[in-house]
Amino acid sequence: MSRFFSMEKFAYLTPYTPGEQPQDRKYIKLNTNESPFPPSPGVIAAVSEEAEDLQLYSDPRSRKITEAIAAYHALSPEQILVTNGSDETLNFAFMAFCDSETPVIFPDISYGFYPVLAALHQIPSVEIPLREDLTLQVEDYFHKKGMIVIANPNAPTGLTRSPAELEQILKESPEALLVVDEAYVDFGGESMVPYVDKYDNLLVIRTFSKSFSLAGGRLGYAVGDPSLIQDLDILKYSTNPYNVNRMTSAAGCAALREAEYYRKNCRTIEENRSWTTDALRDLGFSVLDSRANFLFARSDRIPGESLYLKLKEKGILVRHFPKERIRDYVRITIGNREQMEAMIAAVKEILA
Amino acid sequence: MSRFFSMEKFAYLTPYTPGEQPQDRKYIKLNTNESPFPPSPGVIAAVSEEAEDLQLYSDPRSRKITEAIAAYHALSPEQILVTNGSDETLNFAFMAFCDSETPVIFPDISYGFYPVLAALHQIPSVEIPLREDLTLQVEDYFHKKGMIVIANPNAPTGLTRSPAELEQILKESPEALLVVDEAYVDFGGESMVPYVDKYDNLLVIRTFSKSFSLAGGRLGYAVGDPSLIQDLDILKYSTNPYNVNRMTSAAGCAALREAEYYRKNCRTIEENRSWTTDALRDLGFSVLDSRANFLFARSDRIPGESLYLKLKEKGILVRHFPKERIRDYVRITIGNREQMEAMIAAVKEILA
Repeated sequence: MSRFFSMEKFAYLTPYTPGEQPQDRKYIKLNTNESPFPPSPGVIAAVSEEAEDLQLYSDPRSRKITEAIAAYHALSPEQILVTNGSDETLNFAFMAFCDSETPVIFPDISYGFYPVLAALHQIPSVEIPLREDLTLQVEDYFHKKGMIVIANPNAPTGLTRSPAELEQILKESPEALLVVDEAYVDFGGESMVPYVDKYDNLLVIRTFSKSFSLAGGRLGYAVGDPSLIQDLDILKYSTNPYNVNRMTSAAGCAALREAEYYRKNCRTIEENRSWTTDALRDLGFSVLDSRANFLFARSDRIPGESLYLKLKEKGILVRHFPKERIRDYVRITIGNREQMEAMIAAVKEILA
Repeated sequence: MSRFFSMEKFAYLTPYTPGEQPQDRKYIKLNTNESPFPPSPGVIAAVSEEAEDLQLYSDPRSRKITEAIAAYHALSPEQILVTNGSDETLNFAFMAFCDSETPVIFPDISYGFYPVLAALHQIPSVEIPLREDLTLQVEDYFHKKGMIVIANPNAPTGLTRSPAELEQILKESPEALLVVDEAYVDFGGESMVPYVDKYDNLLVIRTFSKSFSLAGGRLGYAVGDPSLIQDLDILKYSTNPYNVNRMTSAAGCAALREAEYYRKNCRTIEENRSWTTDALRDLGFSVLDSRANFLFARSDRIPGESLYLKLKEKGILVRHFPKERIRDYVRITIGNREQMEAMIAAVKEILA
């Protein structure tokens, strides 16, 4: 730390810890919820073509990709803001809609970036515990003021609530802004996007990282009432006006043109998830009912951290969170069938 | 604006206005200081290859591109932080090193993003007027506390101060952090990078946008003492841990491998700048002595705004700033020779 770092603001800031990316050997990587499928051929072609014009700035309004996303959701471009990954959307939302008088409210067990963003921007935060079975009950979010952030499906549990259930929060907390983080919705979840026309207190956040195989491309977006999008746009133009580069925009447009390829991949991942859930349960694991591209599982026969470490020794990376209520679990990304079979074989050996 | 936007924080925020990108017709674009030269063949090849792995996250530590930049400057990777364009570096620096007790100090005429970032983060700002002739005098920055931000060469003037002159600020304001924004240094300026080993109160900000023909790729970086880089890194991991995507990192690495191509382009731009300066002076313009890839020029025969508008009618975009001390000027990006000849021919017609 330098002698210039602001202690007024950051004395209590602990940065986010991304899933490890060890370089020492080749792993079967099931720890960061990446897709096992490469981008479609059109994405690679579009990126190559766009690279020839990199001397020119990207369009600060990101018109092409914004229009493509709007068409994909049958919405208007004024309801969309694209960002450098959905983490940037989250950052803008925390900045725009929270302040010393307006807290952010989120479950105690959810995406680990929410408390980091609250600390970064010195925003008071309220953590609402998930129930004993790690489910979220919508009543816990009624009669609130501030910004409510719910990942649906939730991470790292993979559990989900239906749009009709979440809609009750919109009705029962009309003075609150509900942000629904749908990073994992394309693996069998149901989206709140169709509700943005009806509610001005709903912002949906999405990403191309998982279901569109673009984690390394960084493309996220917000969907909501044009007034909310305008607010986020003010922050984008005050932070990083050219935030989405040319190649990423081109990749996103191409991916949407080939959406069928990605939909099929999502179905395959759902099948692999189902196979893996059964295989783990056969081994005596408790496996939460995931609608995401990962499983959250625990066994009475081995602590979560031991399983994580032993799998790592065997060249398989999963994720373990040393947090009180969930330290018995590991989170396992759903990869292709061969990866899942290798993981199950390794678990069998470890338990033997 | 939505009913949720924080008025506590943003009541007085006016976002940055990027140079216009009109879509109505094809222009000779001399308004955003882009390079007229495309990226080198290795950049396009590297991006195409990298696109095949976009389903995997980018390295949050950005090791390859950080090491390549460190080698380019003969520094260590601990002295470098890469970002999604240099605007993101600036954003992190304003957040990290300024607060309610620690103002940001910059010239009254400089990159228009500095006051925006100050307002965004509710940082007190002190604007120090350039002298009558639009030069910066280093004595004006002696005995200061806070974060001093100086673009060198300055924008939009193109005027420069030598590293030896700026070093006096480091000595005379040892309690201040000096941020030198070197976006335009590769067109005949002199860099402060060699001073980062000696001073822990110097942060240099650079970009691949101009001299490396990567404006549309978004790659910027900070160079400074490891303690300063660590501070910025904390904010990066608390804002957007995967901020630099795979394609952009690959493009940057390839560009540095082909640095000679870009150096030659910079020399060509300097020659075109010299030719254009002479041509404008022959037409009676006052032209500041630019060391950047643009000229700042005015004529007693036509107001800056009129010249801008008439050039636009003729299909040539330059930039006009409606700010009091500089509204007589236009800023003209140095393009290739044909573009410069077309611009001069158009100016002649307008003045005729």
